[in-house]
Amino acid sequence: MSGNARRANRRGRPGYDLGRLLDVSVRVFNERGYEGTSMEDLSRRLGITKSAIYYHVSSKDELLRLSVNRALDALFAVTEEEASTTGKTIDRLEHVVRRSIEVLVDELPFVTLLLRVRGNTKVERQALTRRREFDQVVSDLVKQAEAEGSIRPDVDPALTSRLLFGMVNSIIEWYKPSRGLRASQLADAVTKIAFDGLRTSADEHSPGDSGSRAG
Amino acid sequence: MSGNARRANRRGRPGYDLGRLLDVSVRVFNERGYEGTSMEDLSRRLGITKSAIYYHVSSKDELLRLSVNRALDALFAVTEEEASTTGKTIDRLEHVVRRSIEVLVDELPFVTLLLRVRGNTKVERQALTRRREFDQVVSDLVKQAEAEGSIRPDVDPALTSRLLFGMVNSIIEWYKPSRGLRASQLADAVTKIAFDGLRTSADEHSPGDSGSRAG
Repeated sequence: MSGNARRANRRGRPGYDLGRLLDVSVRVFNERGYEGTSMEDLSRRLGITKSAIYYHVSSKDELLRLSVNRALDALFAVTEEEASTTGKTIDRLEHVVRRSIEVLVDELPFVTLLLRVRGNTKVERQALTRRREFDQVVSDLVKQAEAEGSIRPDVDPALTSRLLFGMVNSIIEWYKPSRGLRASQLADAVTKIAFDGLRTSADEHSPGDSGSRAG
Repeated sequence: MSGNARRANRRGRPGYDLGRLLDVSVRVFNERGYEGTSMEDLSRRLGITKSAIYYHVSSKDELLRLSVNRALDALFAVTEEEASTTGKTIDRLEHVVRRSIEVLVDELPFVTLLLRVRGNTKVERQALTRRREFDQVVSDLVKQAEAEGSIRPDVDPALTSRLLFGMVNSIIEWYKPSRGLRASQLADAVTKIAFDGLRTSADEHSPGDSGSRAG
């Protein structure tokens, strides 16, 4: 939580602190789209007046900034964990992927909002810049693991990190926490597929097969 | 192209057949959102009157139906190709993944529109039903390949097919045909990662590593 959020929480009215305000606002943004949501809509859904919202934040834009930063801060915290910064690079990469999935599940509405940001405003462009910085961390890990010989040399590192996080991010499209699939099971499935592959070692791969069907 | 489309093309005015009408409409839908686009918006962008649009289609809904069906028809055609229906199941699965990526690249705006459909109208719900049928074909292939021993037994088939196509579908978020990455290169990268994994065989995997960090 940012300094602003802590301040607002301390001074918050009983029953409606900034945390809860963000939880509800993000849900409405995800349902109606950020552009399509007015402060009036939020006030109705929250059951408080617009001036009660302005008691906590200066604008709809600030609600967006605090919301996407909650997701981004959690993702950047992952990159600073010990298992992300020490040890073999490929294991560090696997740790970042695994923990990012846990963040995605823990902060599902916030990550969903973040992934839908398109860059129409300054706040959105700042979020996209931070997303690119995160992507760069992942891409550098892929590159380094490839240089160390732990990752197959025939895949482009930038493309690999896009596809890897494409798989991770696609989870927001269908994941329902209520159905009982845990973050750790999701993380296991993603890392098994991406790092070790679906094919059993007993299965013979026909190497000439893939080149023949170019688009 | 559907029967309707062919009919409309035959009777179409010079310079504006249904194909071109769809191309432009889909681009506008993707930019502004389907809900956010009026027939007035389309008429302005196309540079033709609304009645000229109604000469080709009965409603905005019909434009959506024709557009998403173009993507869906192409995907279902993939599942009927010889390499999708004969041979080892895991190779059939790999062929479906590879060819789906080629469809995604060939029909990028149409697949993009399809993947954003949320089920608010009858046309959208029909599209979601057909998407689920396609997902079922993929999921059945994963299940069968697992039963045959070609796919590792420790991944859930439904989850695997979601993640596999999560990776494929994520391509719409960033792929720009103008940057020169070909469909076949994309398909190579996806199938290498998903089927054979990123890790080189020389790299030792520490099996106790993954269970300890449950979310």
